[in-house]
Amino acid sequence: MRQSNLFTKTRREIPKDEVAKNAKLLIQAGFINKEMAGVYSFLPLGLLVLRKIENIIRIAIDNLGGQELLMSSLHPKENWEKTNRWNTLDILYKITDSLGKESALAPTHEELVVPLVKQFVSSYRDLPLSVYHFQNKFRMEARAKSGILRGREFLMKDLYSFHSDEADFKEFYEKVKKTYLEIFDKIGLGHLTHLTFASGGTFSKFSHEFQTISEAGEDLIYICKKCGVAINSEIIERQKVCPECGKKEFRQEKSTEVGNIFDLKTKFSKPFGLDYKDKQGKRQEVLMGCYGIGIGRVMGTVVEVLSDDKGIVWPESIAPFQIHLLSLSQDKKAEEIYNKLKELGKEVLYDDRDIKIGEKLMDADLIGIPYRVIVSEKSLREGGVELKKRTEEKAEIIQITELYK
Amino acid sequence: MRQSNLFTKTRREIPKDEVAKNAKLLIQAGFINKEMAGVYSFLPLGLLVLRKIENIIRIAIDNLGGQELLMSSLHPKENWEKTNRWNTLDILYKITDSLGKESALAPTHEELVVPLVKQFVSSYRDLPLSVYHFQNKFRMEARAKSGILRGREFLMKDLYSFHSDEADFKEFYEKVKKTYLEIFDKIGLGHLTHLTFASGGTFSKFSHEFQTISEAGEDLIYICKKCGVAINSEIIERQKVCPECGKKEFRQEKSTEVGNIFDLKTKFSKPFGLDYKDKQGKRQEVLMGCYGIGIGRVMGTVVEVLSDDKGIVWPESIAPFQIHLLSLSQDKKAEEIYNKLKELGKEVLYDDRDIKIGEKLMDADLIGIPYRVIVSEKSLREGGVELKKRTEEKAEIIQITELYK
Repeated sequence: MRQSNLFTKTRREIPKDEVAKNAKLLIQAGFINKEMAGVYSFLPLGLLVLRKIENIIRIAIDNLGGQELLMSSLHPKENWEKTNRWNTLDILYKITDSLGKESALAPTHEELVVPLVKQFVSSYRDLPLSVYHFQNKFRMEARAKSGILRGREFLMKDLYSFHSDEADFKEFYEKVKKTYLEIFDKIGLGHLTHLTFASGGTFSKFSHEFQTISEAGEDLIYICKKCGVAINSEIIERQKVCPECGKKEFRQEKSTEVGNIFDLKTKFSKPFGLDYKDKQGKRQEVLMGCYGIGIGRVMGTVVEVLSDDKGIVWPESIAPFQIHLLSLSQDKKAEEIYNKLKELGKEVLYDDRDIKIGEKLMDADLIGIPYRVIVSEKSLREGGVELKKRTEEKAEIIQITELYK
Repeated sequence: MRQSNLFTKTRREIPKDEVAKNAKLLIQAGFINKEMAGVYSFLPLGLLVLRKIENIIRIAIDNLGGQELLMSSLHPKENWEKTNRWNTLDILYKITDSLGKESALAPTHEELVVPLVKQFVSSYRDLPLSVYHFQNKFRMEARAKSGILRGREFLMKDLYSFHSDEADFKEFYEKVKKTYLEIFDKIGLGHLTHLTFASGGTFSKFSHEFQTISEAGEDLIYICKKCGVAINSEIIERQKVCPECGKKEFRQEKSTEVGNIFDLKTKFSKPFGLDYKDKQGKRQEVLMGCYGIGIGRVMGTVVEVLSDDKGIVWPESIAPFQIHLLSLSQDKKAEEIYNKLKELGKEVLYDDRDIKIGEKLMDADLIGIPYRVIVSEKSLREGGVELKKRTEEKAEIIQITELYK
């Protein structure tokens, strides 16, 4: 894409009404726009990143056998009454229509997915099954000051699984655990992300979170020095040894929850009467798990933990473009390279704007595309173009044909 | 995909709480699920169709130079007060948070896109520009009885364009008109869809709608017998000749609006002060256009107008799969063909369920995939497989290798 065509622009000034680093940088670099507290729009560059994260997750969940659907955001009040959450969940947005009929604006989808799946499950032969979607969630957050880490409206992937017995549930749950670690690896957060034991609520001993070490984190975790598994501070009083390896030495870190998985047992199948006939023809309650990843939250966390004092640093796997092409008074050659890269299907942002090279360089650092390529008289004299990785200080001269590989 | 893995099932009984043909068929065939009046979830097959329609539109709008973003659904009340629509738009859902602060749940996005774009426009050099998104819209429809043709929550593509002068606007508007006709052609509605002159509201003489002839339609149009352009009945009293060719002979048809385009002039740029400096340094108001297509509505219209008494008939361009493979006691051969088709990247739904062939045939007709392929002893004896197009009555025997082309 030509940067002159991109309607967004970078900003030098830091937005005054933001305290979160992720929001400040993403707004400055033109990835998001703040609409109100906790509500952001994704601009073209930001949407490219969202879609890349979404696709990494989609492929991984498809591999688990998850079936993608798209559930609505408006939910009938009755469903939320059935689970007793209509009056107890304080983050639930309620809307009233002109006839006085109330509905929920969904913060999560258990209340919808269970009656939906119930229509198609009658026998043990219909199980196991798992469904997922990417959908906006709405939560009435009291304080929404963490940028896209904790919004009132945010895009989330949630997966729900349905099982006939505990062993089957357990097998799937363990697969998701592994898949989640692979997802965070691929997104570029793997080295900072720890499987974390957290409170399981009323029904289970534990739930599992995926916590990424971050200064901006709202959580506190204790990471086992031996095996790397962590314990959320909320349960450290009752769980003083590592549940994975039994050791007792931990280091404490601030962290952000980027994913979580829950053993729901029959918490939601019971109120909706979701059951099945087993091989003996006996009715049994369906066991459930749920598994979430906030797409915006993952994006915000990447910005929080990987950016430097010059700007954002995108991992290649989720960068809006792979190459940022800059011309220093060599527009003709740069055009030629840009067209060739496009032809080859490379993801390239070409800064063809008529501005000073200093500004182009600052913008390139701020936007954070993995590979910066400069075409200048000097680079051409030395045999090619100047290539610099966003994560490195030093640039090198490479032959132009190297770019086309 | 293996049909035995698909968690949805077809239904023989017609849903009693639906009056619209599109909803009845889509529910029976397992494409959508009704959550409440006017609110539907899209099941795996339905989501595949939605995404195909979305992609046809995305490619077309990208070609026009539109930049994709994703604007939020929650809007600040102030924005809607500025345009005087907070208290006048009766379909507007309002939500109130725990502190009593009100927000709008967006039925359309002019109130957000204008202040957003304003941040990036200061000079004539920043124009023209156009942005679009696919986003859920929420509208408090009093009667919601048309299935996915008119929902309370529905996915829509809306494009907004910004121009410095009338000539530039006009040029873009004409391009969109052409592009829209191409989109409806590609989706398979071209032969039934007419560019229609409708009321332009306070500011313009006309707006343009794209109306598809349909028995289920809520609109009435007058189609010029000479040139095929139509006039919406709402303006037939004041517009008695075809605005395109001047002729006066029309045929009357019921129709559904599948898209519309509006000349907004300065209706929305004025309240938000969206202006630019022209070449002389003088401040001028920005001219705007907006252009919508309801994705669910298009899908519902296809079902209304193309289905037959056996079920849905998907055009190839938006079908969830291209081939529906059925085995009649030849599972080994069918498996082999399925695997080969998958390997070749073909979109194939393989009915590997252990049910009677009669049921498979009924389901295939109901689901409406363009090509039905039956592997049976008879077909193999005759040299291959039986191929039948969903739109035709007669089947033919083709060599298996023909399928792989």
